[in-house]
Amino acid sequence: MAELNRRRFLGRLAGAGVAGAGLVIGSTSVLDAAPASAATESAVAFRGQHQAGIVTDVQSNLAFAAYDVTTTDRATLVSMLKRLTAAAEAMTQGAPVPGDTPADTTPRSPARLTLTVGFGPSLFDDRFGLAARRPAALKPLPALPGDQLISGRSNGDIAVQACADDPNVAFGAIRDLTRIGNGVVASRWTQFGFGRDSSTGSNQVTPRNLMGFKDGTNNIRNNDASALNQFVWVGNGADQPWMRGGAYLVARRIRMRLEQWDRAPVPEQEAVFGRKKASGAPLTGTGEFDRPDFAATNSDGSLVIPADCHIRLAGPDANNGLRILRRSYSFHEGQEAGLFFIAFQSDPEAFVTLQRKLGSHDALDTFIQHTTSGLFACPGGLTEHGEDYWGSGLFET
Amino acid sequence: MAELNRRRFLGRLAGAGVAGAGLVIGSTSVLDAAPASAATESAVAFRGQHQAGIVTDVQSNLAFAAYDVTTTDRATLVSMLKRLTAAAEAMTQGAPVPGDTPADTTPRSPARLTLTVGFGPSLFDDRFGLAARRPAALKPLPALPGDQLISGRSNGDIAVQACADDPNVAFGAIRDLTRIGNGVVASRWTQFGFGRDSSTGSNQVTPRNLMGFKDGTNNIRNNDASALNQFVWVGNGADQPWMRGGAYLVARRIRMRLEQWDRAPVPEQEAVFGRKKASGAPLTGTGEFDRPDFAATNSDGSLVIPADCHIRLAGPDANNGLRILRRSYSFHEGQEAGLFFIAFQSDPEAFVTLQRKLGSHDALDTFIQHTTSGLFACPGGLTEHGEDYWGSGLFET
Repeated sequence: MAELNRRRFLGRLAGAGVAGAGLVIGSTSVLDAAPASAATESAVAFRGQHQAGIVTDVQSNLAFAAYDVTTTDRATLVSMLKRLTAAAEAMTQGAPVPGDTPADTTPRSPARLTLTVGFGPSLFDDRFGLAARRPAALKPLPALPGDQLISGRSNGDIAVQACADDPNVAFGAIRDLTRIGNGVVASRWTQFGFGRDSSTGSNQVTPRNLMGFKDGTNNIRNNDASALNQFVWVGNGADQPWMRGGAYLVARRIRMRLEQWDRAPVPEQEAVFGRKKASGAPLTGTGEFDRPDFAATNSDGSLVIPADCHIRLAGPDANNGLRILRRSYSFHEGQEAGLFFIAFQSDPEAFVTLQRKLGSHDALDTFIQHTTSGLFACPGGLTEHGEDYWGSGLFET
Repeated sequence: MAELNRRRFLGRLAGAGVAGAGLVIGSTSVLDAAPASAATESAVAFRGQHQAGIVTDVQSNLAFAAYDVTTTDRATLVSMLKRLTAAAEAMTQGAPVPGDTPADTTPRSPARLTLTVGFGPSLFDDRFGLAARRPAALKPLPALPGDQLISGRSNGDIAVQACADDPNVAFGAIRDLTRIGNGVVASRWTQFGFGRDSSTGSNQVTPRNLMGFKDGTNNIRNNDASALNQFVWVGNGADQPWMRGGAYLVARRIRMRLEQWDRAPVPEQEAVFGRKKASGAPLTGTGEFDRPDFAATNSDGSLVIPADCHIRLAGPDANNGLRILRRSYSFHEGQEAGLFFIAFQSDPEAFVTLQRKLGSHDALDTFIQHTTSGLFACPGGLTEHGEDYWGSGLFET
């Protein structure tokens, strides 16, 4: 399947002459240096009904970039989006970037690279004539309890999420896109993250966050088509057709007060989450996937799962069954560390509803601050026809 | 060998009752949950002639911490160093930390964790009566050309370098040491880093730095005993016996102006390093390990390997054969990224000599700034006798 996609992609490049200047197929390049199988086995298809990087099995590393568009000319922006799309597709398939001289890009294997694009509310102002294309749901996230946003590190006109199983591949892809976009888009803020599972523990499935707790026990599974269609994918009834098959990406940089957390006794930590630290079981159970008994009380009448703990406030039982698809990464930047929270949902109001509740009552709030916020509309996937590009549904229809 | 070390370690723990409170061997713990082989195969011996983490095959992730000692009582400090040593040894072997209740520490596999301790010049002031124990070579690094140090992010009384093949293991180890040390040592600055080789490229041996160039082509190999004895290990003639078998660790956080770098044409980048970007070959050669011909000239008489390029200035040919052992990691912290440079040498003057030359003339200087600086004396390894602890040679003799 991966091999098929790659052949199709290379055929399309060769046949269509996409952004042809400098493109060399068959000469000395990473494709020749590496055995074909090495590149293809770790490549994720770039095109399809949905964008890759949303339900793709979570890779171990993240590089996330939000851009400001610096041109005011629509044609210039569209031309750049075409170039970025061609570069993105090439990088995910381990192919040379069209238009780059071979040595501009350091040879990199695909490492399951996915590049997912989203458009921020600010892109739909009066610069590019897109106001009428703005989905009603795409508006800046409101001020939320718990916000302590850092100036200049939120929002953006365009965002790209790069995920890969190699930090150099994810970061390198963002840097190459930034270089190619120079003069038309400029980096506004970036975030680097690392995976939370890897070899930690034996038979680990649910990753642990930096607080040491399993995070994602009840996350939507990427093979649960029913839940994905209900909570994640924008349906055919979307107010803007270009969002069909897409999703809204919420990004929140959550700083954790880890030294304070590490000094809290484990029972106190467990009362904050409502789960046991080692096993991940709810405080009323013994196994990670046991269903929490939110009504259970101790002999003194107090709730076993406290009223202000995270799983009670955030869980679907307390939110009319509401669920979101989380895809978060840990980060560590000198004296700051925490979680770069990413969630995909068909309606960003789902996140706002949950965060309004959490930010006001959650026992976890003592230990965290939200320092970056962003909402981006990620369109549906590109078809197998090479003419599509990032935003073609938005700009061309 | 690893299995033997682990058995010996566990036997020592059980027999000697090291810092015994709360230590549980044989009850539910990570050791029972994981097959014995999983833990032992990825464990690096903690004791030996030299500290681990200096010539150990470079792991993929780094967490580095510099601490201030906050007590002024020597006995309190010594007691804490004993506790930290016991915790460090346990963590590297995948065993429960002595004195911790089982759940305090998140279960983690060893992931080839190494923990390497060093002592900064400031530890040898008048607080602990160590002034007479200070090696003559252990003095604060001088101001160097290229320095743009960030206040509060340099130096420290004690440093610990944690390296592991899992970012959570490296960072978790530092956090556990910080928690255990609370009240006696306090974190001064930390640095997180990621590996530069992993799956990038095929048959990659020499890692690439974030500038996309191979970095370490001529580094001292960890099996080159002769070079290690000449340039890295402090010998028996040391002015302070506790440094025998040790080395001086230089830490420099080097911020790279990557957007500027990425926009520089590749031939200009190659002239900065004196090497070809794709192959790593010197500009006078075709293979990475070809010997540079520093005398070669172009037809117009100019040097093929420019006078101000990195390999000419930093190489042993221009420095009376001087070599250092580098063990650096890349970092990415929001809007900043670069190289956390770590070097080990038997005499820190070796680094100072090289950096004086590089900081004044190196073409690379346009693209980098040194923002953190630290020098730490790493003692020799602990013997197989359990009584040794981090600094015992310094405090007990």
